[in-house]
Amino acid sequence: MKNYIISNSKLTEDSFETIKNFYLNDDPAHDWLHIQRLLKQGIDFGTHLGASLSILLPAILIHDIINIPKGSRLRSKASLLSANKTKELLGKTDYTDKEIESIAQVVLEHSYSANLPATSLESEILQDIDKLDAMGAIGVMRWAATSAKMKSKFYDEDNPWAEGRELNDFQFALDHFETKLLKLEGRLNTEIAKKEGQKRLQFFYEFLSQLKAEI
Amino acid sequence: MKNYIISNSKLTEDSFETIKNFYLNDDPAHDWLHIQRLLKQGIDFGTHLGASLSILLPAILIHDIINIPKGSRLRSKASLLSANKTKELLGKTDYTDKEIESIAQVVLEHSYSANLPATSLESEILQDIDKLDAMGAIGVMRWAATSAKMKSKFYDEDNPWAEGRELNDFQFALDHFETKLLKLEGRLNTEIAKKEGQKRLQFFYEFLSQLKAEI
Repeated sequence: MKNYIISNSKLTEDSFETIKNFYLNDDPAHDWLHIQRLLKQGIDFGTHLGASLSILLPAILIHDIINIPKGSRLRSKASLLSANKTKELLGKTDYTDKEIESIAQVVLEHSYSANLPATSLESEILQDIDKLDAMGAIGVMRWAATSAKMKSKFYDEDNPWAEGRELNDFQFALDHFETKLLKLEGRLNTEIAKKEGQKRLQFFYEFLSQLKAEI
Repeated sequence: MKNYIISNSKLTEDSFETIKNFYLNDDPAHDWLHIQRLLKQGIDFGTHLGASLSILLPAILIHDIINIPKGSRLRSKASLLSANKTKELLGKTDYTDKEIESIAQVVLEHSYSANLPATSLESEILQDIDKLDAMGAIGVMRWAATSAKMKSKFYDEDNPWAEGRELNDFQFALDHFETKLLKLEGRLNTEIAKKEGQKRLQFFYEFLSQLKAEI
């Protein structure tokens, strides 16, 4: 995939490797595998929709480069910090200042919590593929792993399905389906992502239904 | 559930609370929620099969009381250490020495890695419900969370499905389905557990099939 990305963008081997090194962390929800899945789907959707891969691909690579743990009050600033890093990361490539600005804007707009409108097709795609990666089977894996990292309980032992109580997804991981995960599909931009999103939402419901039978 | 357990065993309020306190950890795969799920299913299966709840229930409560992290060389000794703890935990109850010995034996035999044959119906049930809790939707959650705790990668980026390479479930979480999780159903003892195990195995296949479509 590296060669494909380099030949479809103005990234150099060096800039690619520099960016990759930022993702050698142990956060299973924002690691290099996450970036790889988004690159794969970004190439697929971007090609289908006629997006500029040379803008989209570096934006995907950079979007989570500053990773702030869930629960930190700086969390909502992560996409801004990542966007600010774009100039430094692409400074030694052939990208023009204007292109770098476009890429930084795509990075900035990806944030779920910032909830900014997408101002370009490339931004619509990054928003979509980032949401899709939080859904379906991979979404369940990332959710459960993040719950372990945050040391939250899987669910409220007395009231797993939060009947008649306020949702608290920091304390109980299962509440996160209601606070965020089940809403993602309704916020997708592009038709191709919506089609995929419906499958992944369907899997969420299968997972929750199976879980209900087990606990 | 606490009242039901105390009235169907010789546990006292004190011994119950002492045991519960051992599970106030942040291991999402072996916490108090795990014990609660096993108690619920143990009561169900035990009643259906005519097991002695007064032996089975304390065995469930005690079975993971000494929790040794995955990867530690002492891990295979956990069930022996938990069994040894039985006398101390039940010493101030009305359990006879013979009963305590039976309970300790059920605890000892539960271990998957020790792979001991179940020498009583209660032991067959604990082996079964412990395996079932590693399967299905809850199995997926415990597996992904344990992967995060062990800081392993979800999968091998170059070869997720381990085609033509040796399995390594310490490095790649996904390999754990082949090394262990998909084999659990074939090692269940009782008919009632096998019936439930087939549903949970089916969910595993749905999960893996969905994941294959996503990565």
